[in-house]
Parts: sequence; C-alpha cells; structure tokens
Amino acid sequence: MSPCAACKLLRRRCAKGCVFAPYFPPDEPQKFANVHKIFGASNVNKMLKDLPVHQRGDAVSSMVYEANARVRDPVYGCVGAISSLQQQVIHLQSQLTVANAKILSMQMHQAKVRSSQTKSLRSPSSSGKLPNFP
Amino acid sequence: MSPCAACKLLRRRCAKGCVFAPYFPPDEPQKFANVHKIFGASNVNKMLKDLPVHQRGDAVSSMVYEANARVRDPVYGCVGAISSLQQQVIHLQSQLTVANAKILSMQMHQAKVRSSQTKSLRSPSSSGKLPNFP
Repeated sequence: MSPCAACKLLRRRCAKGCVFAPYFPPDEPQKFANVHKIFGASNVNKMLKDLPVHQRGDAVSSMVYEANARVRDPVYGCVGAISSLQQQVIHLQSQLTVANAKILSMQMHQAKVRSSQTKSLRSPSSSGKLPNFP
Repeated sequence: MSPCAACKLLRRRCAKGCVFAPYFPPDEPQKFANVHKIFGASNVNKMLKDLPVHQRGDAVSSMVYEANARVRDPVYGCVGAISSLQQQVIHLQSQLTVANAKILSMQMHQAKVRSSQTKSLRSPSSSGKLPNFP
C-alpha cells in the first residue's frame, strides 16, 4: 500500500487508521501540501480528531478550499470571496427593490387607467343617452 | 512595555520589531489565541513575513475572521458563509429575473393598449364622419 499524501509529505509511516488517509490519497499530493502550508499538519490532525468521522470529509473539503484560496490570495484568502459576494448581494437587493417599486408603480398606474375607463363608460355622456339640456 | 498577545501566549520575549506586535495588542488575547489554534503561530509568522508591511494588517484581519469562523463552526468554517451567500445570490438573481420579466410584460401590455387606443381614435368610426356605404 502506498502511503497517503500527508504521510508521504511528512515522511512518516502511514499506519492503519491514519486520520489523513481517507481524505488525502497519494495521487493528489497538492491537496495536502496546501492544507499543510496554511493550517499545519498537526492542527489539521487535531481538528479532524475532534470531529465525528461522518463530518471529517466536509471539514477536509472546506479546509482545502480555504487553503487553496489563501495560497492564491495571501492577503485576503477566501474572505475576499465573502466580501465580493456580500457586495453582489447588496447590489442585487438594491436592483430588486428598484424593480419591485417599478412593478408597484406600473400596477397602480394600470389600476388608475382601468378605474377612469370604467367611470367614463358609466358616465351619461357615453351611455348613449343625450344629456338633458335646460 | 507589555509583550504583545502573541508573545505572551507563546511565552517568549517580545523583541523590538516583533512581527505580531502591531496586530496583536496585549489587551486582545483571544484574537491571537484563535489564529494560533487554527493556523499555528509559525505559519502566521511566515505568512506575515512573506507580505509587504502595508498588506499585513489586511492579512491579519482576514486570518482572524477565518479563524473565528472555524472556531465557531469546525466543520465548514467561513466556507459555510460563502455557501450561504452563494445561495442568496442565486435566489436574488432568480427573483430579479422574474421581476424584470414582469416589467417587460407590463410594458408590452401598456404599449399594446396605447397602440389600440391610437388606432381607435384614428379609425373612421370614431373620427366623426359617417362610413361610406355602398
């Protein structure tokens, strides 16, 4: 058996029950390299051991995502993505508010037009009868 | 001079020019404690030293944000916030598409009504002249 990517990088024996092995296969060495560079192997080991087994896969995925983002952008990491998404949410909310206000204004205008048309149809001048002249 | 929060936690002398001191004041011990717990002091030290001084403040802020998020949510960390913001963006984009389609449909309806009103005003039956019978 080939040692997992973590044990290979850390140059240690990949023992049975290794906490990294299920998530860091030997054919994806970069996956562990970035996580190790950003969080440190001993912190990742500790974080995984503190979690129940069924949550470890998700924890590894989110740590790999964070580590890759930090390697790409050492100043903002994935907080840059959060900031950009927050701006996008604010922009979309404002566009939606404008669009909804426009819909409301158009609906009110349509209601006003319909109401004046109904009144005009019911008024004596358009009922087909001649108005009473004095 | 009191040692910075990092040197205090690491039990070392806070030398002049300490890379942590400008960002981890002694009165905010938790700020460094979380960063140390998640990234490890030596990784943070390395990451800061690899950056120009004017970018280190932002790098510390984003690392503190990430570390606090990971302490609160050890499975998803701040990737949970990214996922939730992405969902919010998708939902808002879909609401905006619906609203814009509604506006377009109402504008087309209004244009149709106006066009038929104009035609009806211009047609012989409403021009005041009698139609020509054969």
